[in-house]
Amino acid sequence: MKRTRLCDLLGIEYPIIQGGMVWIANAELAAAVSNAGGLGLISPTAGMSRNGNQVENLKQQLEIAKSLTSKPFGVNLPILNNPQIEELVATAIDTKVKVVVTAAGNPALYTSRFKEAGIKVIHVVAAVRHAQSAEKRGVDVVIAEGYEAGGHNGLDELTTFTLIPQVVDAVTIPVVAAGGIADARGVVAALALGADGVQMGTRFVATHECNAHQNFKEAIVKASDTDTVITGRKLGPTRILKNEVAAKIMDMEAAGASVEELLAFLGSNRSRTGQFEGDMANGEAYCGAIAGMIKEIKSVGEVIRSIVDNYETVLTSLR
Amino acid sequence: MKRTRLCDLLGIEYPIIQGGMVWIANAELAAAVSNAGGLGLISPTAGMSRNGNQVENLKQQLEIAKSLTSKPFGVNLPILNNPQIEELVATAIDTKVKVVVTAAGNPALYTSRFKEAGIKVIHVVAAVRHAQSAEKRGVDVVIAEGYEAGGHNGLDELTTFTLIPQVVDAVTIPVVAAGGIADARGVVAALALGADGVQMGTRFVATHECNAHQNFKEAIVKASDTDTVITGRKLGPTRILKNEVAAKIMDMEAAGASVEELLAFLGSNRSRTGQFEGDMANGEAYCGAIAGMIKEIKSVGEVIRSIVDNYETVLTSLR
Repeated sequence: MKRTRLCDLLGIEYPIIQGGMVWIANAELAAAVSNAGGLGLISPTAGMSRNGNQVENLKQQLEIAKSLTSKPFGVNLPILNNPQIEELVATAIDTKVKVVVTAAGNPALYTSRFKEAGIKVIHVVAAVRHAQSAEKRGVDVVIAEGYEAGGHNGLDELTTFTLIPQVVDAVTIPVVAAGGIADARGVVAALALGADGVQMGTRFVATHECNAHQNFKEAIVKASDTDTVITGRKLGPTRILKNEVAAKIMDMEAAGASVEELLAFLGSNRSRTGQFEGDMANGEAYCGAIAGMIKEIKSVGEVIRSIVDNYETVLTSLR
Repeated sequence: MKRTRLCDLLGIEYPIIQGGMVWIANAELAAAVSNAGGLGLISPTAGMSRNGNQVENLKQQLEIAKSLTSKPFGVNLPILNNPQIEELVATAIDTKVKVVVTAAGNPALYTSRFKEAGIKVIHVVAAVRHAQSAEKRGVDVVIAEGYEAGGHNGLDELTTFTLIPQVVDAVTIPVVAAGGIADARGVVAALALGADGVQMGTRFVATHECNAHQNFKEAIVKASDTDTVITGRKLGPTRILKNEVAAKIMDMEAAGASVEELLAFLGSNRSRTGQFEGDMANGEAYCGAIAGMIKEIKSVGEVIRSIVDNYETVLTSLR
């Protein structure tokens, strides 16, 4: 498998980053990904109780990860509407995290502080202008995330196939492709479009190491190609597994429901209800559109080895 | 560039099919694509007057194409809600067209008649179940078209990146990737995902040979990554260039407008107004999300040669 400049920059063997999924990107998952040669990411909410303290939780997760791997790993920090963001930033700096991924907010806010502390900064973008802005703010890498990705999604609905080459043409820093990738074919395709690496979320949810609820993992394995949907176009588009909640939101949207009505129905922490507690009817399960291609819960090592082993086979098929 | 089984099946040199775009996939465009080694497709409405006779128009277009190329070319026949479909099918058979692409309707209706006449049948699909159904009905090839494609779009919003590998895994007939492809990077990526070829629409609109209005071609060249949008989710999702019409439809949709209200606003033939007449404010211009990557109006020969010439360069970059 090709060693890209992303590998050199982050000190990893394979250009594969694990998504830092809210509630379920736990230390065991991140450490397993890093031990297998990729870059694991921890979410500050991984395994946390409802309304828990993200800072305390993150410190615990970092301790566990450090006990499990000597390889680099990172932390995913969604900026927007995060009441504890200042303390989380300080924690990442104080604990000498190697890599921070920022998303859903302005990278200008924290990038220089991280960089002064020697931390590599990766920012998630979903359109060319955001990639250019992130580069100007000094981030080291952008993750360009397509419409097929699980969870929170860009407003412009650019797909991985259209987003990656346009971002690659617009910036000089490394570009990581996210959204729709679950096997070696997807990794080769992403690199063909010009990416320096990939980020996978849903594929890593369906692993033994992830602390997602077993019901969520099994729902991914059972999902067909058409079993995810974008909901909440008025609130902030979010790709989730189809279920009763998704159907209700879509009915409300089609009938012209207001933001207030939608928020009142949704309440809070529905993604924890689905992803961590395993209530697949009343919770939300953030899930990529590639779920239909995931047929088995595997170990993290198997996922990464399968990609590495099949990379050359895919290349050979192109001649 | 790889010679795939699609090339052998259709008798073409490169596995590149041109989209048979309504109003503007004219004989000169199709012949140029076929002469350059791909498969050109003619639309029965190419250059036709409003409410013209598709059958007479198609016969004229076929005569012109035959005078311009001795290579195979095809005809694109959207089945659904087409009042002249029976006569068009008969015309394709009588004139010994080599390839027919059917879309937006049930492939069971005409496939056996085409096959008995020695015509290769290609059906456009946007989800795995439709690909499987088309294969059962005996079609020779499926075009799997992603959410990024211009014009009429599937209801399930599967992107090229997620649709292609899942369709490839579900059928044994050749799969052509459509949506989001405009250069050699996209072609390599599509083949890495398992496709046997590609179909490109928007890239071929912005060619000298296409009879699209110059305003439409220039709008594609000027477009940025975020300049297309899906409208008409209640009517049948359609990707068009953003303009006043798109904004009005989206406002109506967000306010919960009924199908009747939306149809009353849209009227008829708006895609001719935009694409063929060049009224970019009041017309609709069907356009793929890859428009932002198209920076120049070229000849068809230049488009295809550039892909063929750069294919190996992209492959080399993957090692």
